[in-house]
Amino acid sequence: MDPRVEKRLGLKQLAEKVVSAQEAAALIEDGTVVAMSGFTRAGDAKVVPMALVERAKNEKFKIDVYTGASLGPEVDNYLADAGVINKRGPFQGDAVMRGLINKGEISYVDAHLSHNAELVRQGIIGPIKHLILEAVAITEDGLIIPTNSVGNSPIFAQYAENIIIELNISHPESLIGIHDIYVPAEQGQREPIPMTNAEQRIGEIGIRVDLDKIQAIVVSEEPDAPSLIVPPDEETQTMANLLLDFFRAEIKAGRLTNELMPLQSGVGSVANAVLDGFADSEFENLVVASEVLQDAVFNLIDAGKVRFAAATSITLTEELQQRVYGNLEKYADKIVLRPQEISNHPELIRRLGLISINTALELDIYGNVNSTHVSGTKMMNGIGGSGDFARNARLGIFVTKSYAKGGAISSIVPMVSHVDHTEHDVDVIVTEQGIADLRGLAPKERVSLIIENCAHPDFKEQLWDYYNRAVEATGNAQTPHILEEALSWHVNLAKNKTMKKETTNA
Amino acid sequence: MDPRVEKRLGLKQLAEKVVSAQEAAALIEDGTVVAMSGFTRAGDAKVVPMALVERAKNEKFKIDVYTGASLGPEVDNYLADAGVINKRGPFQGDAVMRGLINKGEISYVDAHLSHNAELVRQGIIGPIKHLILEAVAITEDGLIIPTNSVGNSPIFAQYAENIIIELNISHPESLIGIHDIYVPAEQGQREPIPMTNAEQRIGEIGIRVDLDKIQAIVVSEEPDAPSLIVPPDEETQTMANLLLDFFRAEIKAGRLTNELMPLQSGVGSVANAVLDGFADSEFENLVVASEVLQDAVFNLIDAGKVRFAAATSITLTEELQQRVYGNLEKYADKIVLRPQEISNHPELIRRLGLISINTALELDIYGNVNSTHVSGTKMMNGIGGSGDFARNARLGIFVTKSYAKGGAISSIVPMVSHVDHTEHDVDVIVTEQGIADLRGLAPKERVSLIIENCAHPDFKEQLWDYYNRAVEATGNAQTPHILEEALSWHVNLAKNKTMKKETTNA
Repeated sequence: MDPRVEKRLGLKQLAEKVVSAQEAAALIEDGTVVAMSGFTRAGDAKVVPMALVERAKNEKFKIDVYTGASLGPEVDNYLADAGVINKRGPFQGDAVMRGLINKGEISYVDAHLSHNAELVRQGIIGPIKHLILEAVAITEDGLIIPTNSVGNSPIFAQYAENIIIELNISHPESLIGIHDIYVPAEQGQREPIPMTNAEQRIGEIGIRVDLDKIQAIVVSEEPDAPSLIVPPDEETQTMANLLLDFFRAEIKAGRLTNELMPLQSGVGSVANAVLDGFADSEFENLVVASEVLQDAVFNLIDAGKVRFAAATSITLTEELQQRVYGNLEKYADKIVLRPQEISNHPELIRRLGLISINTALELDIYGNVNSTHVSGTKMMNGIGGSGDFARNARLGIFVTKSYAKGGAISSIVPMVSHVDHTEHDVDVIVTEQGIADLRGLAPKERVSLIIENCAHPDFKEQLWDYYNRAVEATGNAQTPHILEEALSWHVNLAKNKTMKKETTNA
Repeated sequence: MDPRVEKRLGLKQLAEKVVSAQEAAALIEDGTVVAMSGFTRAGDAKVVPMALVERAKNEKFKIDVYTGASLGPEVDNYLADAGVINKRGPFQGDAVMRGLINKGEISYVDAHLSHNAELVRQGIIGPIKHLILEAVAITEDGLIIPTNSVGNSPIFAQYAENIIIELNISHPESLIGIHDIYVPAEQGQREPIPMTNAEQRIGEIGIRVDLDKIQAIVVSEEPDAPSLIVPPDEETQTMANLLLDFFRAEIKAGRLTNELMPLQSGVGSVANAVLDGFADSEFENLVVASEVLQDAVFNLIDAGKVRFAAATSITLTEELQQRVYGNLEKYADKIVLRPQEISNHPELIRRLGLISINTALELDIYGNVNSTHVSGTKMMNGIGGSGDFARNARLGIFVTKSYAKGGAISSIVPMVSHVDHTEHDVDVIVTEQGIADLRGLAPKERVSLIIENCAHPDFKEQLWDYYNRAVEATGNAQTPHILEEALSWHVNLAKNKTMKKETTNA
C-alpha cells in the first residue's frame, strides 16, 4: 500500500476495504438516494462520481443526490450531464445543472440548509442507500476526518446504509483537528447546543460512524475545484464602504461595539467583496461565524482583523488555495469547521446575535427579497443558508448591485417575482447607490428609503410613478400595489429585453 | 383602601402610587412610544387606554403603541378611532384598526412575534416612555404578576422609562404561580435557554422590575374582551379528521408516536376547530406548546387528552372564560404562561420539535402562503407568530378552507399576492377537500397534490389550465409562471367579484 495512504488509514483493518473508484461506483444501486459530502465546491465526493459518469456510458441508471450544498463540476456538471441525476438537493450553483433543472430534466428541491438534517432524521430525505464521503484520514479509533467542508456528512453518516470513503491524500494532514463535529439528538430528547460563543469547540474532531457500514475506501488525489468568485470592483467597494459607515453609526448609537458581532457573509462575489472591505478599516478583533469561508476571511485573518472564523466549509480561489492549504498550521487555532446544522442553526444564530450579509437577486419597494428565481420562474442557485441567517440574525443585511445586464434590469422592482425573504426578515439593504435601514418601519415607510437610497437613478422615476399610482388606487392601503402592473417590469424585460418603460419593441 | 386591593398589593410602600385612571392617563406624554401588556385580547391594558380615549376628546396627542399582540376594543378599536395611535405593532386583529391601517391613518409594523424583544433590546422599538401593564398582584418582594397573558411585558418592563400598573382585581388570585418569566440576556452574553421539554419551568412567577420606575398604579375591574372565535363546523371537522389521519399515517411510518410532539395551534376559529378534533380521537397524553390557549385546549384538558399546555396567553370565549377562570386551581399544574420571546423562540421550537398548525389566507400551487394581505394590498391581521413556528417546527402545517365568499374566491391561486411563508416553510396543507404532504418535494411535484387534494372542485380545471400553459411557456422551468397572468385571479376578483374565469362583468 502507498505509504501516504497507510499513514492516513489509522484503523488498519480498513485496508481490506480499499478498492478502485470503478469498483466503488459499481456498488451504487440504481434508483437509490445517494448522499455525498461537499459544500460549495469544498470537500466534494469526486472520483466515485466521475467513475459513475464512466459507468453511465454503458448503462442506464438514475440516482437522487443530496449533499451539503453546491458541488464542483464532477457532480453538478458531468454527472448531471450524463443523465444520472433524477433529483437534487439542497443547493447547486452550476450552469449545466441549472440548465437541466430549468428544462425539467432534474427535479430540484432547494431548501434551507439548516433544515436538511431534520429531514434526514425523519426519513423525508432517504432512505439513504449510500454516502460518498471525502476524508483526509481515518483515525485509529475510527473517526472519519472530513476534508475542507463538513456540510451534512455527519447526519448522512448516521443514517446511510452504506458509506464509501474517498480518502483524499492531496488534502494536507494539517486539516486534522480543524473540525468540530457535534450532532444534536432527536427532537424531544435534545439538549441545548452548549455553545455560547463562536470560538467554542463542542464536539469531536471527526465523524464517528458505525464501521460496519463502510462499504469501500477509494484513494483520491483530486483537488477541489477552485472558487469562481470575481475580485472586488469599484461598485462592491462602494457597497463595502457604505456598510462600514453603517456599522460606525451603529457603534455611535450604542448598538454595536468596535468588535461588532459575529459576521456571516453569503456565498458569492458581492458578499466576499463586501467582507473584503474590512481590510482597510479600523475594525479589529472580528469573529466570523458563517457558512463558507471565502478568500476575504483569510485576507482579514492575515491582516489581523479577524481573530477567529467558524463555518462549514472553506472555498477559495486558486491563488488563495495555495496560500492557505500550504500554510494551514498558521490558521489552525483561528478556524473551525462545523456541520451545517450547527453553523446555520437558528438557536445559535439568534443566541450569538450574528450580523448576516447575503446577496439578493432582486428586491421590491417594500423590502421583499428574491434570491433564487430569475423572473420568478428559472432557478439560479437556491436559497442556501440565507434564510437561516436572515431570519434569525441580529442584523439581516442584503446586498446587490442596483442594476444588471448593463442597466436593462433594475434590481429594485415594484413586486419581486419570487419571494425568498419576506419583508419581515430584511433589516438593511445595500446597493452601490446607497443604504436603506428598514428596521422598525412599516411597508410604506420603507419605500422612499429603498427608492431614493438604493435604486439606480434610471429607474427612480418609474418606481415612484408605480408607487404613487398604487397608493391612489388602493386608497393608501398597508401595501399599495396595482396587481395588473406589479409584475409588468419582468414582462417588459421578457418582451423588450429591458425594464425601462420608454423602450418599445427591441 | 379597598381590602381586595390591599390583598393584591404585597409591597405596601406602593400604596402611595395608587391613582385614578384619569390621573395615570394624564402622565402619558404626547409623541412617545407607549408599550402595553396584552396578547390576543388577554391581559390587555384597559382602563388607562380608556381614560386616554376620554382625554383625546379635549386634547390632540399621538402615541406609538406596541404590545404583545392584538388587543381588545379598548385600544385597537376605541383608542384607534379616537385618532390617538400614530404607529402600531406588532399585531392587531380589529376591524376598526384594520380600516385605519388600510387608509394610511395608522402606520402598522407587523412583525414576527419572537423578534420584538430583540428590537426592544436594540432600541429599534423605543425609547419606551411608558409601559401600561395589567397585573393581578404585586408580591411582597416586588414581583409584578401579569394576568392571563405575558406577551412582551417582561422585556418592555426592562426597557421602559416608566411603568403604570393596572391592578386588575377581577382576575382570580389563582393566576399567581401560573407564569414562568425567563428573559434571555443580551446577545453575545446569552446562555442557552435551559428548557428541554415544554413542561419545564425555568424562571420566576412574576416580572422583576426596578420599583423606582413604577409611576402609578390604577385599580381595575374590567374583564378581558372575550375571544371572537366561532364554533367548529362540518368543514373544519373534516379538516380535523384529515389531520388526525395524517398523524396516524405518520405514526405508522415511525415518524411520530401516539403522544405526537408538542402542538402549536394558531389564533382563530379554524385552527381552534382543528385542535378540537382531537377530543374524540385515540390520541392522549398530548402536550400543547403554543402562543395562545384557546377554548379547544381546555376542552382537551377536560377530556383527559392534553396533559400540559404552555403558551403566552389564554384567550377564551365567554362560556369558557366562566368555566376556566372560575376553576383555575384545577388547571394550575397543567398550564404555564411564558413571555412570547420564549413561547415563540426558534431555539425551543426547533429543539422540542413542535407540530405547528396555522391558518393561511391563500396559498399557491407551489406552496407559498399568504397569511396577512387581502389581494396583496390590504392588511388583515398580521403574521403574528406563524413565521416563528412554521419556519422552525418539525411539521409546519397550514389550514384553510379551499374557498371564500360563498365560492367566489379560491384560496388556492396560481401565485399568492403576498408571501408570508415561502415554499421552503410549508410542509403540509389541509383544506376541507383534502391534505397535501409537500415535504421533500420540488415545486412542480407539489402542484398536483395541491390542486387535486386541496383545491375546490370549481377551480381545479382553471388551476390546471394555468399550470399547463405555464409549463409550456417556460420550457418546464423550476417554477413555471406566466407573469402576465399570475395575479389575474385577484384582478378578476376586483373587477368581477369572482375568481371564476367564465364570469364576465358582474
